[in-house]
Amino acid sequence: MSARRHVNVLFSAPKATYEEFHPAICAALQAAGVPARVAGDLAPEEVDYIVFTPNDLISDFSVFPRARAALSIWAGVDKVLHNPTLTMPLARMVDPGQREGMVEFVTAHVLRHHIGMDRHILSSSGWDQVAPKLARHRKVTMLGLGELGGACAQALSALNFYVHGWSRRPRALEGITCHAGPDGLEAALAGAEIIICLLPTTPETENVLNAHTLSLPAAGAVVINPGRGALIDDAALIAALDSGALGHATLDTFRVEPLPEDHPFRAHPKVTVSPHVASLVRVDTSAAVIAENIRRGEAGEAFLHLVNRQAGY
Amino acid sequence: MSARRHVNVLFSAPKATYEEFHPAICAALQAAGVPARVAGDLAPEEVDYIVFTPNDLISDFSVFPRARAALSIWAGVDKVLHNPTLTMPLARMVDPGQREGMVEFVTAHVLRHHIGMDRHILSSSGWDQVAPKLARHRKVTMLGLGELGGACAQALSALNFYVHGWSRRPRALEGITCHAGPDGLEAALAGAEIIICLLPTTPETENVLNAHTLSLPAAGAVVINPGRGALIDDAALIAALDSGALGHATLDTFRVEPLPEDHPFRAHPKVTVSPHVASLVRVDTSAAVIAENIRRGEAGEAFLHLVNRQAGY
Repeated sequence: MSARRHVNVLFSAPKATYEEFHPAICAALQAAGVPARVAGDLAPEEVDYIVFTPNDLISDFSVFPRARAALSIWAGVDKVLHNPTLTMPLARMVDPGQREGMVEFVTAHVLRHHIGMDRHILSSSGWDQVAPKLARHRKVTMLGLGELGGACAQALSALNFYVHGWSRRPRALEGITCHAGPDGLEAALAGAEIIICLLPTTPETENVLNAHTLSLPAAGAVVINPGRGALIDDAALIAALDSGALGHATLDTFRVEPLPEDHPFRAHPKVTVSPHVASLVRVDTSAAVIAENIRRGEAGEAFLHLVNRQAGY
Repeated sequence: MSARRHVNVLFSAPKATYEEFHPAICAALQAAGVPARVAGDLAPEEVDYIVFTPNDLISDFSVFPRARAALSIWAGVDKVLHNPTLTMPLARMVDPGQREGMVEFVTAHVLRHHIGMDRHILSSSGWDQVAPKLARHRKVTMLGLGELGGACAQALSALNFYVHGWSRRPRALEGITCHAGPDGLEAALAGAEIIICLLPTTPETENVLNAHTLSLPAAGAVVINPGRGALIDDAALIAALDSGALGHATLDTFRVEPLPEDHPFRAHPKVTVSPHVASLVRVDTSAAVIAENIRRGEAGEAFLHLVNRQAGY
């Protein structure tokens, strides 16, 4: 047998992420049987695969003539989607650990609002016994029924919630009342008590929650956004909270991150801010996905989780 | 056909509970085809069934010579268990709505502590991205595997938690690592990160969480008690919280209820107090259980949910 050549993997990520992921990616490639050199400073013309965080670290992908694929370690790739120099196949991260973490974040916050636990966390006085309604009587609407939204919708259904879902293209998920397209959005939101945003950002989904659509849910409804900040019209959300149309918003994603300390969400009594933690990738499980995609590239097999650049996700 | 006689049902409950349940019990008896008179002031010698809250409203059951059963509308009957005048069959409430509500309370608080949401609820500043471990790596221990504990354990297992359970008598539940008896308790608690108490109060379970057993879980573990206040040695719990051995306690049941405003739990920064709401019975579903038991009594069938007074539940 001839010695196999090493694959050159450029790993481009902020320093802390680099240090966290580099050993895991090396270990996963070794486990996948792919001899590789993984580094942050390879000569561009030698790069076989680009593994990266889709932020601003790489702006010109045309300097990597040999790169067979750009493999994101983040689920969201909207920041590089329309970069005209990114002409090689682009894969986003679909991390089983990330999916599990998202399901845990979403079920946790839905149940939190469902049983009304904040009043007990925030105050330890009193003895006001109010039985929350049962989950089977609580309409919960999931906006987005892809990898993450679909998994969360089914977990909520398993917890007995009365789950509706909405997606751009028609979907069928067991136990979920599915709506689709512009006409389906109003039916999905009408009377909903908890709304979760897990859509990708596209021109059609930007501001999907706006002054009009936020008027459709039940009075005092709760919005949970672990998806993308741009899905919500911030000013319309604050107006709906202030008027009482909405009871609370739990926001994990924002138009600008980190969320500025002086942003109105920070001080709003009806807003919970979390620092984009719902969808954190887990190092071990996501490194294994990267290694599997490089193995596939070397074996001439189709890449997993390729982005459809027309659809935008 | 001869006219069926009316069954006389004494309904003994605090005023607010009486007013909430009385119409539902009447409606459920009618739906069950049992002609009945349901009132709070029947002549004792005419009472056929006692439907009651097991508190101090009735102390002498010997005044009801004809009563065929005492049917509790609460799950917990420990307050009347050793009343020597209560010689008729005693049934506790097993309410499907209550079971669902308990599962929702327990999964909500387990997930709350699992993802560490308090820091975001209590403060909206900062941007400290920490990925919680996945549920599959979180050992959760359920003390009590009866109607409620078993249902909660299985819901937590379905959410991927690594669930251990402990009960006095050996049990087998799918997906749960079951321990039993005094010897099994240490293995159940060792290294647990979240512990839930759903045992009945018996001489053997009183203070099951004490200075010794509270030293067994992982450092910073969380205790959730929606079961019975007497399961926990209050002073040992506070000492474990103060030393850092435990990270938090979420308590829904107490030795004295309502919990006095000056009780140390109220002001403790690591204690969440909720007012015995985890196990509230739901009126419609529990009234149907009462009616079914009276129908069974009239038809000569076995009563549902009879209490074993030797075992204590």
